[in-house]
Amino acid sequence: MLTVNSLNTALLTDQYELTMVAAALADQSAHRTCTFEVFARRLPDGRRYGVVAGTGRLIEQLSDFTFGSEQLAVVEKFLDDETLDWLSNYRFTGDIDGYPEGELFFPGSPVLTVRGTFAEAVILETLALSILNHDSAIASAAARMVTAAGSRPIIEMGSRRTHEQAAVASSRAAYLAGLSATSNLEAARRHGVPSAGTSAHSFTLLHTTTDGRPDEKAAFAAQVAKLGVGTTLLVDTYDITQGVANAIEVAGTELGAVRIDSGDLGVLARQVRKQLDDLGATGTRIVVSGDLDEYAIASLRAEPVDVYGVGTSLVTGSGSPTAGMVYKLVEVDGIPVAKRASHKESRGGAKTAIRTAKATGTILEEIIYPTGAAVPETTSTARPLQIPLVRGGDPVADLPTLDDSREHLAAALVSLPWEGLGLSRGEPAIPVRFIAPDPRSPDPR
Amino acid sequence: MLTVNSLNTALLTDQYELTMVAAALADQSAHRTCTFEVFARRLPDGRRYGVVAGTGRLIEQLSDFTFGSEQLAVVEKFLDDETLDWLSNYRFTGDIDGYPEGELFFPGSPVLTVRGTFAEAVILETLALSILNHDSAIASAAARMVTAAGSRPIIEMGSRRTHEQAAVASSRAAYLAGLSATSNLEAARRHGVPSAGTSAHSFTLLHTTTDGRPDEKAAFAAQVAKLGVGTTLLVDTYDITQGVANAIEVAGTELGAVRIDSGDLGVLARQVRKQLDDLGATGTRIVVSGDLDEYAIASLRAEPVDVYGVGTSLVTGSGSPTAGMVYKLVEVDGIPVAKRASHKESRGGAKTAIRTAKATGTILEEIIYPTGAAVPETTSTARPLQIPLVRGGDPVADLPTLDDSREHLAAALVSLPWEGLGLSRGEPAIPVRFIAPDPRSPDPR
Repeated sequence: MLTVNSLNTALLTDQYELTMVAAALADQSAHRTCTFEVFARRLPDGRRYGVVAGTGRLIEQLSDFTFGSEQLAVVEKFLDDETLDWLSNYRFTGDIDGYPEGELFFPGSPVLTVRGTFAEAVILETLALSILNHDSAIASAAARMVTAAGSRPIIEMGSRRTHEQAAVASSRAAYLAGLSATSNLEAARRHGVPSAGTSAHSFTLLHTTTDGRPDEKAAFAAQVAKLGVGTTLLVDTYDITQGVANAIEVAGTELGAVRIDSGDLGVLARQVRKQLDDLGATGTRIVVSGDLDEYAIASLRAEPVDVYGVGTSLVTGSGSPTAGMVYKLVEVDGIPVAKRASHKESRGGAKTAIRTAKATGTILEEIIYPTGAAVPETTSTARPLQIPLVRGGDPVADLPTLDDSREHLAAALVSLPWEGLGLSRGEPAIPVRFIAPDPRSPDPR
Repeated sequence: MLTVNSLNTALLTDQYELTMVAAALADQSAHRTCTFEVFARRLPDGRRYGVVAGTGRLIEQLSDFTFGSEQLAVVEKFLDDETLDWLSNYRFTGDIDGYPEGELFFPGSPVLTVRGTFAEAVILETLALSILNHDSAIASAAARMVTAAGSRPIIEMGSRRTHEQAAVASSRAAYLAGLSATSNLEAARRHGVPSAGTSAHSFTLLHTTTDGRPDEKAAFAAQVAKLGVGTTLLVDTYDITQGVANAIEVAGTELGAVRIDSGDLGVLARQVRKQLDDLGATGTRIVVSGDLDEYAIASLRAEPVDVYGVGTSLVTGSGSPTAGMVYKLVEVDGIPVAKRASHKESRGGAKTAIRTAKATGTILEEIIYPTGAAVPETTSTARPLQIPLVRGGDPVADLPTLDDSREHLAAALVSLPWEGLGLSRGEPAIPVRFIAPDPRSPDPR
């Protein structure tokens, strides 16, 4: 039994990366200098913006992307000795730039740029996409929930609805997006996300008497005795009105909160608020949970709800569980390259991105232009979107922390045009303008 | 850098499990003998059946569910010394039964039954649900794809569209459901799933000449030189017709396969088949990929497709990324218990499940009755659905292997009524009948 943040990550990849390396080593093309870019061709499902997340996890796992004897034993079944030898010495030595975590992205935004030899860069494709597609999908959904909740906190409690390790990454992405806490203890350990939690229905049911009668008060008393009067009591195991009465009878009017996990949450929140106030528990808060998504959260805006708990919809990206990002070769030895077959055209050439904004800070447009070309002139202020992440294979100093990324997104959301924060389906909040490489001028590098 | 199959899993849980343990240790209720059951209240999205998957992974991770110093350092922030001491000695010592992996399930099927003290059983809730909800969602979607594909093989290539560890579990679940191979190398290492893969568009683009001209033939030649003439050449980077011509020119008519990854796959498959046949490459197979789900696979049934590659829809459960299973306390010291609040009623009492079938093998009904009661009389043959998995905390001998589970499911699918194998939305393929505990007779145990 081991507890580490990451394992060897070299086999978290598709077999074809390694067969390509084998064929490219044989004809020397493996050593050509290449640029790969990660981008999403479109946003899912009428979404107005996406949120970049996962980059930090990718950089962390990069150093564990090495081929030891255990990895080589798997791939030697289909690779030749030259390739196995190359893999055994593999360590990424190139450069990576990208949008910082917490930055908004739009269709075509080059959220990650990987430069190196073909062989060293191509084999990072699957790991990079797995992490960015998952974490960005969760953060993108979570950001909408945070907007819908306004100033009310949201607790992430969806671990049980997703893969056990995806749950940890989901908690991280949700915190990045502005959720307040998570139920997931490994996310607390691994990423420092604040954790929270009190009790489930099973705890109340456990206190069934030996002759088979419910005893909610015994359960509440046990919880308050151990966790203190500031705890949250779950009041909907039997009858909610009786549950609230029992909660205040046992804990007194200083009770921290009650939680309602089923039923018509808006109606119940109003009833429970009135009951609590009538009992004198005016400071006792109301936590609601149970199949909440951003729309359900928004629909409760006028109700006396203090805290939301979200689960399934958060960890499944609220209908869009993957961000649709791809990892495409865009440049070989300075020459722009692109696939031309139907429906999946890509734009060749390495790209630099800037975003313009009004004096008020509201963003206007994203402009993507050939890397190395002159910065496009704009009438409004423009800021670059990409930052250095890895140089010569090593993470740069002072990478953004998770809290930095959380603040970055909070500021970015404020910069969206108002319609971009709406929950309704529509076009991306700002247009993305591509400036094509000038075919007459060779790459200046 | 470490390579192991599993890490410590104790923190892959929700904080409230541990606060409940703390409160229950204080009032001694922690030691009451409890039964928890895992079941799904409903099938997602008009599905006719679900497929149980993940149980083997859960049992594997059970032995790593222990609290060492690193885990205790996280939870000591909110737990008392008595609880920390109990956790430091924790090891599950109870019994687990369940539907074998690869078994079908329906609404209410008790797919996993965990018996032990409250404290030792409640803290497995999150891990058990994470694994079963994820893996069952993937296997349930994958089984429909296998049915849609008929006798044609499907390769799983969705790793890049899901969390990097969920990708490994997805490959396992997909293989269990009848897919033929995976692109994921860690699934090959960890679970023995056959792996496959040849090349991506980047490999063709890499062979752009130094003066910027595409050179598909150079890419194909490099691939054939290294991987042999039996390889699969990706023909849609530039122009598909030219790509096929180049492929056969380079590889000859003994070429293993061509892959088409974009465009109208049905139309293209027909065109490419004719072109290959006209060129004399009558044995060269056609692999299609690109946003395929069970419906797209079915729509290609009449086309000359030999192999399908599936990605996004597989790893996201084709619209239902989680199986909706819950972990509920159903019995305390032999007394049936159940939540009573609106919309989420559960049935109390430990349950045993049998499934009846016609003489032809076609299943008729699932019957769920109180554990310990007489087996209901049926006019048709009935078989028990649950098997022992863990006894006294240890896995039983001869647990089903992944290949056993794969065969189990293949046989189970054959037993479905014909409408149960349809892709259209509808009711569960068979009814589930619940026999309530007799309130007059006490639990016989």
